[in-house]
Amino acid sequence: MNDSLGTVTTERVVLAHEGDPLVLVSGARLPHVEVAYETYGELSAARDNAVFVCHALTGDAHAAGWHEDARRPGWWDNLIGPGKAVDTDRLFVVSANMLGGCSGTTGPQSVDPATGRRYGPDFPALDMADFVTVHRRLLDHLGITRLHAAVGGSLGGMQVLEWALQEPDRIDRAVLVAASSRLTTENIAFSAVARAAILEDPDFHGGRYAEHGVTPRHGLKIARMMAHITYVSGISLAEKFGHARDTTGTDKRLAADFEVEHYLQHQGESFLGRFDALSYLHLTRPMDYFDPFGAHPDAVPSTRFRLVSFDSDWRFPTAHSLRIRDQLGARGVTVDHTELASPWGHDSFLLEPPGYHDLVRSFLA
Amino acid sequence: MNDSLGTVTTERVVLAHEGDPLVLVSGARLPHVEVAYETYGELSAARDNAVFVCHALTGDAHAAGWHEDARRPGWWDNLIGPGKAVDTDRLFVVSANMLGGCSGTTGPQSVDPATGRRYGPDFPALDMADFVTVHRRLLDHLGITRLHAAVGGSLGGMQVLEWALQEPDRIDRAVLVAASSRLTTENIAFSAVARAAILEDPDFHGGRYAEHGVTPRHGLKIARMMAHITYVSGISLAEKFGHARDTTGTDKRLAADFEVEHYLQHQGESFLGRFDALSYLHLTRPMDYFDPFGAHPDAVPSTRFRLVSFDSDWRFPTAHSLRIRDQLGARGVTVDHTELASPWGHDSFLLEPPGYHDLVRSFLA
Repeated sequence: MNDSLGTVTTERVVLAHEGDPLVLVSGARLPHVEVAYETYGELSAARDNAVFVCHALTGDAHAAGWHEDARRPGWWDNLIGPGKAVDTDRLFVVSANMLGGCSGTTGPQSVDPATGRRYGPDFPALDMADFVTVHRRLLDHLGITRLHAAVGGSLGGMQVLEWALQEPDRIDRAVLVAASSRLTTENIAFSAVARAAILEDPDFHGGRYAEHGVTPRHGLKIARMMAHITYVSGISLAEKFGHARDTTGTDKRLAADFEVEHYLQHQGESFLGRFDALSYLHLTRPMDYFDPFGAHPDAVPSTRFRLVSFDSDWRFPTAHSLRIRDQLGARGVTVDHTELASPWGHDSFLLEPPGYHDLVRSFLA
Repeated sequence: MNDSLGTVTTERVVLAHEGDPLVLVSGARLPHVEVAYETYGELSAARDNAVFVCHALTGDAHAAGWHEDARRPGWWDNLIGPGKAVDTDRLFVVSANMLGGCSGTTGPQSVDPATGRRYGPDFPALDMADFVTVHRRLLDHLGITRLHAAVGGSLGGMQVLEWALQEPDRIDRAVLVAASSRLTTENIAFSAVARAAILEDPDFHGGRYAEHGVTPRHGLKIARMMAHITYVSGISLAEKFGHARDTTGTDKRLAADFEVEHYLQHQGESFLGRFDALSYLHLTRPMDYFDPFGAHPDAVPSTRFRLVSFDSDWRFPTAHSLRIRDQLGARGVTVDHTELASPWGHDSFLLEPPGYHDLVRSFLA
């Protein structure tokens, strides 16, 4: 089960405390921030081989390798490891759970030191820049001044973009896969329905559901089922499930019958066990407001960018990557973009469509 | 407020009774079926000028003209009326609420004569062919042997297609706008999430919510909000709402803030007052199973078909109309198809993109 990454474990570190609180873009302060992170490979003596990996909406620090007794490897294990595109024989990889998350880093279900109770609905609204502030502190903690590269897909890519504009001289190379610098109105619309499903679930209890001993299961499940459709492509759904169903002939039923329905039910149900509803709200919302070129009008990163998009991605289609390319290009930043053929839609960034991993490998070499 | 249609009223007629029940495709029987319908214009002495209009998912019998004290006209008033594309100076138009609906025709909230209580969850699953069976009975009741035309958009067009294949010699002309002969897996996926939102709402009470004095408001609202996104286009959402929001600068909130969110909230809320959750389930489900060319492999309608699709419709894109054209063409049926440019997505069939109404007018002339 283990390859030469060995068994990996998630570390935790305190990156903000009362004497040095995390000040958010909104002005709110978090007096205590813990961050869960993993590292793979060895930091070179010159400290010049670090690669920071930013996870997407429902990811966590466990990007690669195997945890003890785990049944599955990290979410980006096909990309990161010995001899892989992000080659841990050569590179030192850092992966951290995002601020606001629910997998070890401080988030809405953490205890507010000021009250001794969970933040719940009082957890402050986050900005993409706040995620980056925490990543920066983690790097400082690890004693890494400059990154060989930062890599992220989807929301992860958005963090990388924000970071490069925030600290124009800290990241040598940035890989943004299926990312966006500005959601469309339709993107926001889907996000709004998912959030409404959670916020208006009677079991949400104004965000104090944990104190009521419940979770807004219904809303969170529906949100996930709907979002999942936007992560895949019509082509891949058709190829995978077609019109296969349990009933035959003129038999039919209102409840789940088609295979695609069972599949979505499974996606929704399994999500409940691993994700928190308030984290879902807090991690999706910053995407709606994200406008890094507007927020950093004069930033000219020294970073070289590689952008990858997928032709079947209808959540963040190639137009999103082209906008990033054009905005960076107009500032004189070195950037290239490739649209790859892939049948799997937005989720292609987690898979291995032809050419994808080679684009990452060659850029990091 | 009245044009020369005058004030229109909805009629009700009993089309099935214990001695002549409606036998459904599933084998289930409805011993009492009432149908709400409206007519516009005058039936000619030769009874050869009748046009049947089939409504879409959330429509009703009130397609044109104004009800007394109404604040808005029928849902297809821009298409149907004196001098309009479906010209009531010349044509006799019939429009009926569908079986399973909640606007006057027998549906899940009707009383089951066998028990004296509402059908609720015991209302039988419907097939597209069942909708048509009721339309046929209504025509018989009105003494109309042959239709000059049948016209429908979206689900309405699907009924027209089923009808023409079921009764190959009863309809002279069929107009199918933004229709489909076979949902994609992705179509079914969206439908599945909407139905799950309703079925799994705790207030659904296994379909007996009316007896509990509640409705599954949360689920029905979320279902409608999500479905609404699929009825419009990304372009029209962007043009209408862009990124306008209530807050400014770095202010932000989890609850509705962007204009598109308020718009979707309004769409969801207003739907609750006019539509029943069980009807929503019963009218969407037959679309998932719809496969009329499979169900009628040898039918060769004498009907001439005109198909219209819209280039921004991503619910039933042009490929759906092309499939209908090709299937009909292969059977030697006369059919033409036009894709029109329109920014408004699937809902274009209710609006007036350039060329659309002329295509209907010329075909019915």
